[in-house]
Amino acid sequence: MFRKEIKVTDCTLRDGGLINKWQFSHEMVRKVFLAVNQSGVDYMELGYRASRKMFDPKEYGPWRFTTDEDVREIIADTPVNMKLGVMVDIGRVEEEDIAPCEESPLDFIRVATYIHDIDKAIALANHVDAKGYESFINIMAISTAGEFELREALNQIEAETNVVAVNIVDSFGFLYSESVHYLVKLFLEKLKTKSTGFHAHNNQQLGFANTIEAIRKGANYLDGTITGIGRGAGNCPLELLLSFLRNPKFNIEPVLQVIEDVFLDLRQKIEWGYLIPYMITGILNEHPRTAIALRQDPQKKDKYAEFYRTMTTPECFSEK
Amino acid sequence: MFRKEIKVTDCTLRDGGLINKWQFSHEMVRKVFLAVNQSGVDYMELGYRASRKMFDPKEYGPWRFTTDEDVREIIADTPVNMKLGVMVDIGRVEEEDIAPCEESPLDFIRVATYIHDIDKAIALANHVDAKGYESFINIMAISTAGEFELREALNQIEAETNVVAVNIVDSFGFLYSESVHYLVKLFLEKLKTKSTGFHAHNNQQLGFANTIEAIRKGANYLDGTITGIGRGAGNCPLELLLSFLRNPKFNIEPVLQVIEDVFLDLRQKIEWGYLIPYMITGILNEHPRTAIALRQDPQKKDKYAEFYRTMTTPECFSEK
Repeated sequence: MFRKEIKVTDCTLRDGGLINKWQFSHEMVRKVFLAVNQSGVDYMELGYRASRKMFDPKEYGPWRFTTDEDVREIIADTPVNMKLGVMVDIGRVEEEDIAPCEESPLDFIRVATYIHDIDKAIALANHVDAKGYESFINIMAISTAGEFELREALNQIEAETNVVAVNIVDSFGFLYSESVHYLVKLFLEKLKTKSTGFHAHNNQQLGFANTIEAIRKGANYLDGTITGIGRGAGNCPLELLLSFLRNPKFNIEPVLQVIEDVFLDLRQKIEWGYLIPYMITGILNEHPRTAIALRQDPQKKDKYAEFYRTMTTPECFSEK
Repeated sequence: MFRKEIKVTDCTLRDGGLINKWQFSHEMVRKVFLAVNQSGVDYMELGYRASRKMFDPKEYGPWRFTTDEDVREIIADTPVNMKLGVMVDIGRVEEEDIAPCEESPLDFIRVATYIHDIDKAIALANHVDAKGYESFINIMAISTAGEFELREALNQIEAETNVVAVNIVDSFGFLYSESVHYLVKLFLEKLKTKSTGFHAHNNQQLGFANTIEAIRKGANYLDGTITGIGRGAGNCPLELLLSFLRNPKFNIEPVLQVIEDVFLDLRQKIEWGYLIPYMITGILNEHPRTAIALRQDPQKKDKYAEFYRTMTTPECFSEK
């Protein structure tokens, strides 16, 4: 699939950091940066930008904050072939945390939002845009968004923002291909002057497949992470996505090399990928938090049948 | 997706046995049989039927041969809710190895073939059919079959056999959704009196996704294995497939239970699933044998970038 409008965003560090509170060393981040920079990827999301007033830097690693200083240190004197950026959460960042774009090594900022916070997301995206960054909005947990609210949100984003793209985020890994087709069609219909993007989760081993389906139906902004690293079941693996996109500018070799050099070892220390508890929350259209908690309980982490019974027994829901 | 014509075949033991020469204990096989029998699955393929003259029972476990005696021992006095069967390879089984169906606990036999052996496969399927079994033909390595040969093969199967279904087997895990759509459409067009089936491999994490796509386009015979066990990257995970098929007759709880009881431990002893070397052979439309050999070499098993370079450098091909 070669379509020149297609742009790939690597979110390895941002989404992967959700597993370990962004405790990645500068050495590791530099290796990942170099690999992605050589792979032909268009955008790299290095972490979250969050306020140090709200999160304790003793508890959270540097990529929770992704300061301009840390980003400059990672880049050093390497020529950057891609756009660099961060994600921001509504209410977790202050205006003073975001310098004007011309003073920053960053090029883009993505605003993550649930459908009910869309007005706040628009305000934040417009703030980011006014400071000179490319702005994006990611609508999370799309599989629980009401159709009426979603249509209204898309109308508003189209009318009131300058975002480059709006990303469909399948946070729970619930979508099947036909739902992806339906959503991409809706986004394309509503967003006449913006692009549509897709961010998958892999609870049902559909992260890559759903990304392909989004591409087939016209989404041009696609997210991936190296080896699919990300909270819970993880994401669409970047190595598969780049290989699918026949554009000669992409090169998977540096990605394969950094998997060897960094991710094999990391996977021994932190967990992500297709595991039955995440599959269960995925098929039930639930946030993975119950599955994450289960995986942290050494007695229960592999009690799959019991977990499934709990999650599907209505009277247990009230205890959650 | 609830379509009453849909039939699911579990091939956990048959395909999983390719990893360890079918060295599964009767106790383990009994547990898997009971779980599948409770799950609502329609067909269970217990192993291969092969001639003891051609394979040494000291080297190969019982499910390389899957004798009627062994099957009776597994069933014991359990009421069987599904059809039981085996796979046969052309030239690896003799007529005397197959008793008349009425004397056997088995109900079906699937003939595995490459496209160039289709005449032999038809003869063997007809032999099996004459003995009273439901017969099937699985066309392996479909992603390397020439279109002309494939059309001819389907014409012949339609005209000359009584097979219940012909299965598209993506042995190399190479297919994307659009190729699956194309093949299923072709099979449906050619096979007026037979059903179409699909057997996926998971080299690109598309095993389940491609099975969904085959279903969407009209394939009614679908293969899965518990946790996706199978040679190399493995197969479409049965637990995902059953959950996707909304037919109330399916129940994933016994499958989740046996994953806990049997497969977690087994995965510590033998390897299957998405791993970069299998991804590489998949995207290159190659048999996984080079990747399997790599995984058995402790020095090289994780040398992904080097393996990719070897596999994509034309002069290295001559050495393979």
